Amino acid sequence: MPDFAAPVERLIDELKHLPGIGQKTAQRLAFFLLRAAPEDALALADAIRDAKEKIRECSTCHNITDADPCLYCVGPTRNKKTICVVEEAHNILAIEKTRTYNGMYHVLGGSLSPLSGRGPDQLHIKSLIERLKGGTVEEIIIATNPTAEGEATAVYLSKLLKPLGVRVTRIGVGIPVGADLEYADEVTMLKAMEGRRDL
Amino acid sequence: MPDFAAPVERLIDELKHLPGIGQKTAQRLAFFLLRAAPEDALALADAIRDAKEKIRECSTCHNITDADPCLYCVGPTRNKKTICVVEEAHNILAIEKTRTYNGMYHVLGGSLSPLSGRGPDQLHIKSLIERLKGGTVEEIIIATNPTAEGEATAVYLSKLLKPLGVRVTRIGVGIPVGADLEYADEVTMLKAMEGRRDL
Repeated sequence: MPDFAAPVERLIDELKHLPGIGQKTAQRLAFFLLRAAPEDALALADAIRDAKEKIRECSTCHNITDADPCLYCVGPTRNKKTICVVEEAHNILAIEKTRTYNGMYHVLGGSLSPLSGRGPDQLHIKSLIERLKGGTVEEIIIATNPTAEGEATAVYLSKLLKPLGVRVTRIGVGIPVGADLEYADEVTMLKAMEGRRDL
Repeated sequence: MPDFAAPVERLIDELKHLPGIGQKTAQRLAFFLLRAAPEDALALADAIRDAKEKIRECSTCHNITDADPCLYCVGPTRNKKTICVVEEAHNILAIEKTRTYNGMYHVLGGSLSPLSGRGPDQLHIKSLIERLKGGTVEEIIIATNPTAEGEATAVYLSKLLKPLGVRVTRIGVGIPVGADLEYADEVTMLKAMEGRRDL
């Protein structure tokens, strides 16, 4: 006899596919949905369906969007001379929240990771080079994650883009604001020392 | 401008209604679903819809089921003389996993909690008393959680059921197997001492 009725087992299985959701959490979520009012549970089902139907990739920057080109690509006040390169679409939000960057974006769709089979061809690099052809773009800010893979991607892109006559910069790495030096790992501390500035 | 396109915002909002899912986790899950293959994401939406349509409460024991009466209530090998009372349907699984209990179940649908407005009328207590009328049931095992509310519910049920001529028992409370006495809280330790047995 299975642990639960078939539709419940199926729901738990599907929930377990979500990242960070194991058997116990999937069970808890499934029972929550079963207890919830039908309209509330179905609202989630509909939201998933709706998002999958309406959301696609911006053909210019590969951001996720319900209008192509996306809001950032068509924004009349946005500075077309700078492109900020990020790994994933949701990284854009972290940058937008600073309210200081007003340029364009380009979503790579990940970072270089030979072990996971992600080479340059699996990332949106060709379309980035394509965007430089008009001659409008003056600076590429590489905002990949400061991880081993993100750094490797940054170095790769830098070598590829600099010969095309564009300025290539990398976001600063160091101790986060509000953190305590005591708890900084060695590599971050090293990067913070390297990235020191005159006062 | 909102942080994301409207269908994405809606999906994040719906995911945030799930227990233990905050803004950051909801964003992470939403972006995972957006990146996933359409058939995988829609499989989750369908599983929610399917479960909500097919799953209902067993009219006898209030367990969640796709067939009424549920598997435990109609099981030909199950002992109809004992009813184990639990707070929620998923508690049944924890007991089934011991592979030692072969009786019936009764799901209360929660515990007594005057502060949250859950009195005896909000729990499935009337239907439990109804089940005793045939005279088949000899023992009621109260397996509500060993929390303040679960204990209060156990005491309430015990006072209600004992006059009906049925044996009422409570599951043992004490130090969990494999745990270290050093980390046991005072109340659990006290209960473990009270519940000591001759060797």
